Amino acid sequence: MRIGDGLKGKRVLITQSETFMGPVLEQAFAEHGALVIGVPGPLEAPGAAEDAVRRAGRVDVLIANLGVPAPSTRAHEVGDDEWRHVFANLVDPLPRLARAVLPGMIERRAGKIVVMGSATALRGQKRTSTYAAARGAQLSWARAVGVEVAPSNVHVNLIAQNFVENPTYYGPEVQALPAFQERLKREVPVGRLARPEEDALFAVFLASTEVEFFAGAAIPFAGGWA
Amino acid sequence: MRIGDGLKGKRVLITQSETFMGPVLEQAFAEHGALVIGVPGPLEAPGAAEDAVRRAGRVDVLIANLGVPAPSTRAHEVGDDEWRHVFANLVDPLPRLARAVLPGMIERRAGKIVVMGSATALRGQKRTSTYAAARGAQLSWARAVGVEVAPSNVHVNLIAQNFVENPTYYGPEVQALPAFQERLKREVPVGRLARPEEDALFAVFLASTEVEFFAGAAIPFAGGWA
Amino acid sequence: MRIGDGLKGKRVLITQSETFMGPVLEQAFAEHGALVIGVPGPLEAPGAAEDAVRRAGRVDVLIANLGVPAPSTRAHEVGDDEWRHVFANLVDPLPRLARAVLPGMIERRAGKIVVMGSATALRGQKRTSTYAAARGAQLSWARAVGVEVAPSNVHVNLIAQNFVENPTYYGPEVQALPAFQERLKREVPVGRLARPEEDALFAVFLASTEVEFFAGAAIPFAGGWA
Amino acid sequence: MRIGDGLKGKRVLITQSETFMGPVLEQAFAEHGALVIGVPGPLEAPGAAEDAVRRAGRVDVLIANLGVPAPSTRAHEVGDDEWRHVFANLVDPLPRLARAVLPGMIERRAGKIVVMGSATALRGQKRTSTYAAARGAQLSWARAVGVEVAPSNVHVNLIAQNFVENPTYYGPEVQALPAFQERLKREVPVGRLARPEEDALFAVFLASTEVEFFAGAAIPFAGGWA
Repeated sequence: MRIGDGLKGKRVLITQSETFMGPVLEQAFAEHGALVIGVPGPLEAPGAAEDAVRRAGRVDVLIANLGVPAPSTRAHEVGDDEWRHVFANLVDPLPRLARAVLPGMIERRAGKIVVMGSATALRGQKRTSTYAAARGAQLSWARAVGVEVAPSNVHVNLIAQNFVENPTYYGPEVQALPAFQERLKREVPVGRLARPEEDALFAVFLASTEVEFFAGAAIPFAGGWA
Repeated sequence: MRIGDGLKGKRVLITQSETFMGPVLEQAFAEHGALVIGVPGPLEAPGAAEDAVRRAGRVDVLIANLGVPAPSTRAHEVGDDEWRHVFANLVDPLPRLARAVLPGMIERRAGKIVVMGSATALRGQKRTSTYAAARGAQLSWARAVGVEVAPSNVHVNLIAQNFVENPTYYGPEVQALPAFQERLKREVPVGRLARPEEDALFAVFLASTEVEFFAGAAIPFAGGWA
Repeated sequence: MRIGDGLKGKRVLITQSETFMGPVLEQAFAEHGALVIGVPGPLEAPGAAEDAVRRAGRVDVLIANLGVPAPSTRAHEVGDDEWRHVFANLVDPLPRLARAVLPGMIERRAGKIVVMGSATALRGQKRTSTYAAARGAQLSWARAVGVEVAPSNVHVNLIAQNFVENPTYYGPEVQALPAFQERLKREVPVGRLARPEEDALFAVFLASTEVEFFAGAAIPFAGGWA
Repeated sequence: MRIGDGLKGKRVLITQSETFMGPVLEQAFAEHGALVIGVPGPLEAPGAAEDAVRRAGRVDVLIANLGVPAPSTRAHEVGDDEWRHVFANLVDPLPRLARAVLPGMIERRAGKIVVMGSATALRGQKRTSTYAAARGAQLSWARAVGVEVAPSNVHVNLIAQNFVENPTYYGPEVQALPAFQERLKREVPVGRLARPEEDALFAVFLASTEVEFFAGAAIPFAGGWA
């Protein structure tokens, strides 16, 4: 038995499939024989999440891949627009996605949701208040929903990642900065960014049917930083 | 030296002063000689938080007491209205309050914010997804802001409470239920609800100038439940 | 790329190979093509751990599988003998194993240690003080060592498990008790014991070379209980 | 009502009263009108803890103040002697103290134990494996015992401190190092060591009868570091 065997033929919906962790997630699930349904656009607009799921048909695995550039505003300068924009992209789609995919999963007594969240929710950093708050909402949402639906054999968990290579947060221009490389060595025990493939395989692990004993877990994936 | 001595003469702003933990907080801070400024209404409307602070004048201590009845909707039945209502009351006021009180605190290099949060953010429970998400946003916000402003000698921390007696969540009719009392004995090691005064004194402790070594802490106050 | 591909040909030392999670771990690693070296006996005696490693030769992966029946003594009745016995089995072997395997791993800049720990360290339960203390020592040890050796590309992590089927803690006679089954439903969101194979595959995941971004992590594996 | 009022006349036993946090704890509890019983010596020897309590008579509050210089040995160079010495001082006294003080507390349905623990148990750092393991044992012990005795109205909690000024860990010679001051600014959001009095007042808070809703809590006290 190998981790991921059971993904063969599974219908996997990945949101924001062209940004954040989208492309590498598509590739990893496809390599495991899953039928990947990528939803490229943002899910900001009311109804967008439900529409996407309706078009997708049955969803066995939902990867809630929601990313938006993190503002670096100081806490006392954060405006309502920044706040609303970040929550609209990272947080508000969650109940809509749940509405759309959970009833079928509960009925079939099978299903997985993996939220691509952030370790920023777990460890405070300056100039991240808006972003941390939104990621914190995701994290506690996954904890609560995970506990609620586990008795129905539906598993909802969250990857609390940080320092994972991706164009939204750690593009080549950031990586090229000597100060950034020094910060990696000083603050991240593993001393490097995660390869995107490592993150995607972690999502595969949490979506696998071979190991189904996580429920409402928010697991740090940050090289030892959190 | 006694905990709370330094509150004498301090200007303490308490939001939602007539609901949730408001009244007992007013009393506890007044008993410590603070000048309490209660803001009764909800801070849902844009500008409401800023207006309240402007009228208050200098704020030495902000108690972000934000409560709203917790929906018990199942995760897949949560509608946008419920979601918006809870976030508008529990979450959106935070950056507005920060905008209004933090600049003065940072300039004076003195100030405290205590967020009356919830342990629901830390431990999953069924039928709490909306509420948990909002409380999770508060918690991670406090963590981030706490780390950011600590070097300015401003201390932001959060009480992650649950099972504290108050009319919003645990009114007399809830307490009268035998099933509720049994649940308390089974799930809460301390085996009872906290008296409101215990919670208020915890807020006094976190707002005191005698012990100022917490920063971005989210401390469970739930009788051992979380 | 599949999780566990890189284990092919790796030398995996498993302690207490005939008890606790030993047998299922042996099987899982063997199925991934690893060369499994089982060390059956307890490692209580000074020198025993070092001897076992010396006989094993190169160790690429160490699975610190240390189990001992958990006493259910009340905290104020715990005697020195119980305390010493549990620590001698669960805790004292760790620095000895580290002494024996880490120098080679650090020199080769490659290696994994997975500690089969317990969620009891993370969440308090009555009548578990001795056991919880020992598991807590394991957990904080793994955190510290994980951070220390990560820059050498050696990854030390811990599975904080509970409610995993195994003869040491949840034998058939325990599982047959109706009260136990009720407790599972009430306290463990997933509502069942983990199959031993699920736990072993989690160890495979943490020992894999495909995902190497955990360092000093203590990850709950308890069906949502912790 | 003021925090600490109820300590008047209480019998407070403080271990290692002349080292680590001992002297400042004695002073703080005395200032609150408690009758302080200091036990100066180490409690390493079997029977020492029980003897000390027997001589003390009734104990209303036990402050388990156990400190020993932290070795900075690398994980793979830790010897059995170091390991044993640290556990003998920090960990082994706990069940003995519990044996001696808990029966009376449980019988009287009143009592407090505050363990002066360490945040090192919660956050990994290099070259701290022995010390972290011992502090982790304390932490998980306090969690388990706290949950067990809370229904008897006995409250056991732990202060997970770091960066608190005291001669055992942060003597004047350490504080004088520029590198140490830089590290404080960089790693500790509050940017300074805690004054010993702050720590002692936190212990007073957890030992107070005004706020009795913590059970098995391990609360970081580290200036935002953990």
